[in-house]
Amino acid sequence: MSEYDAILFANAAFYAAFTSRDTSAMEKAWAHDKPVSCIHPGRVAITGREAVMRSWQAIMGNPDSPGISSHTEKVHLHGDLAVVTCVEQLTLGSGRQSLAATNVFGRAGALWFLVHHQAGPLQGDPGISAENEPKPALN
Amino acid sequence: MSEYDAILFANAAFYAAFTSRDTSAMEKAWAHDKPVSCIHPGRVAITGREAVMRSWQAIMGNPDSPGISSHTEKVHLHGDLAVVTCVEQLTLGSGRQSLAATNVFGRAGALWFLVHHQAGPLQGDPGISAENEPKPALN
Repeated sequence: MSEYDAILFANAAFYAAFTSRDTSAMEKAWAHDKPVSCIHPGRVAITGREAVMRSWQAIMGNPDSPGISSHTEKVHLHGDLAVVTCVEQLTLGSGRQSLAATNVFGRAGALWFLVHHQAGPLQGDPGISAENEPKPALN
Repeated sequence: MSEYDAILFANAAFYAAFTSRDTSAMEKAWAHDKPVSCIHPGRVAITGREAVMRSWQAIMGNPDSPGISSHTEKVHLHGDLAVVTCVEQLTLGSGRQSLAATNVFGRAGALWFLVHHQAGPLQGDPGISAENEPKPALN
């Protein structure tokens, strides 16, 4: 597996953990031995592994959290760190929203782990709202 | 100057270049010898120094571009790379908008240069719009 493939694998594992609500996999996706931080859409930065993990537990424990997939990934390798940019596609019912994301990974041996994540909504995207959800039939 | 101070200096130089519309200083703030990328608010990622610089020239050449300042900086050092999170305060006339930002810096000797930037609006922030601008007197 090339370095680029290993980084893309770590990126895919992060989104798989999110969309399958697997908190154990999410904990494994983030670095244990490096400073970590996270900027969720619309929020200020969270710093430190414990606080970042709590934020993911809250998001993944919310039954209204969307599903997520990643595409258009680009890998920028900087030695033992890598910056990945991608587009996130969120789905909730029939609603869809696209976000632009930064994922920074640190190397530990042959594996790569998240040290930072930021996502923010794409302009002009209608977003996920009640209006995008299927309406219940009136009769 | 400590490593943290040098990184914060590079972060401040980036925002000083933006707010003073100094394209030469902006070009100096970004790495020349490393892969660079940038996610402007609401946009997908831009990759490569030439495209990233073009995007800053367009933003800084727009007379309606806001002023900008940075606060609440946190530095996360990873050897020769550093992740800085901060809050950006944009000002345009009487309008204000806050964004959360990620700035990733790479070391070149004793100096640090941007390799990646993402900023996205904070939730609940009213943003800069025509409604926030002073209204012209009707008479």
